[in-house]
Amino acid sequence: MSAPIEFYFDFSSPYAYLGSEMIGRVAEKHGRRVNWHSFMLGAAFKGENTGPLTSYPRKGEYSRRDFDRTARKYNIPFNMPSDFPKTTLAASRGFYWLSGKNENLAKVFAKAVFAAYFVNGQDISDLTIIQQITKSLDIDEEEFSSAIQQDSVKKAYRASVEEIVDEKKVFGAPYFLVDGEPFWGADRIVQIDEWLTTGGW
Amino acid sequence: MSAPIEFYFDFSSPYAYLGSEMIGRVAEKHGRRVNWHSFMLGAAFKGENTGPLTSYPRKGEYSRRDFDRTARKYNIPFNMPSDFPKTTLAASRGFYWLSGKNENLAKVFAKAVFAAYFVNGQDISDLTIIQQITKSLDIDEEEFSSAIQQDSVKKAYRASVEEIVDEKKVFGAPYFLVDGEPFWGADRIVQIDEWLTTGGW
Repeated sequence: MSAPIEFYFDFSSPYAYLGSEMIGRVAEKHGRRVNWHSFMLGAAFKGENTGPLTSYPRKGEYSRRDFDRTARKYNIPFNMPSDFPKTTLAASRGFYWLSGKNENLAKVFAKAVFAAYFVNGQDISDLTIIQQITKSLDIDEEEFSSAIQQDSVKKAYRASVEEIVDEKKVFGAPYFLVDGEPFWGADRIVQIDEWLTTGGW
Repeated sequence: MSAPIEFYFDFSSPYAYLGSEMIGRVAEKHGRRVNWHSFMLGAAFKGENTGPLTSYPRKGEYSRRDFDRTARKYNIPFNMPSDFPKTTLAASRGFYWLSGKNENLAKVFAKAVFAAYFVNGQDISDLTIIQQITKSLDIDEEEFSSAIQQDSVKKAYRASVEEIVDEKKVFGAPYFLVDGEPFWGADRIVQIDEWLTTGGW
């Protein structure tokens, strides 16, 4: 079995949500697994002096149009949340903790969080929304809620984000590593598909 | 004949150079003309509080890799200039003036300026380099050099840049309008191709 595709995301990124659906299809086509890694875009933006796309006046307006157009093109359900962006630390840390226990369940959880925000417009910074999701997936609510408050989990998650931003040099989302080759952006997934088909160029 | 594709570029943008080659192929395939419009990225960046890609540490490093990878993928000659970015006001204003006289010749001039910078590593902020280009294309050197110093040309060019940035809301390069639909970035040309094939979605 070939190496998995490494996928770095922040729950508050529209392109990371769209990209998560797109990379899933491409990976399946090529018989690859996808390893999901949650991180905080805020930490990445800090070192780059950049911000969320929608914080730029003209680029923001264009991006909103492009989110919708990309979603339509790939038939991905999408509704731009009216309250954007969100701090998604609890969900992100919860995903990190869950990944260590059950990677597949963690992915199901992540997809549900993305759908809650980018399809149903729910406030994923609200812990009760996250708890509704864990409940619907038969994840032990108490264990989850206590884990994301634990110092050891907080510390390990923080170290993981630092490693992603400082070592892997991830500066935006979605970000992918395909056999070590970096690709940034949902709009590069077309090239990932071709890279996997041809073996690179 | 269908409407031309509007193409907005700055001579100092690697992706605009790569995009100019890529959009030319896509336009030809669909029997469309491309209308080239030069503007100043600096003016666009000012209103957005953004900067050249290479000014961001991690994004810059990734971008340099991506320029090369994109060039290889599409078989476009490309050598990242060691001196980057450049102020390309003279070339850009000259292109603007030339477009008013002979649109096709202006495009040939633009392609030569891009190649001088992104293939041969020449300093296109140096007027003698631009004059070598005009000479090689049988453009009247004296007329060209005097035109780009004329107040009326300067003023008209400035108004054109303002219109592109303020009215068309172009915030980066390459930027395209395809039957009124905006597309930003060389990585969106794949979608332009599909848009022209399908009539949009």
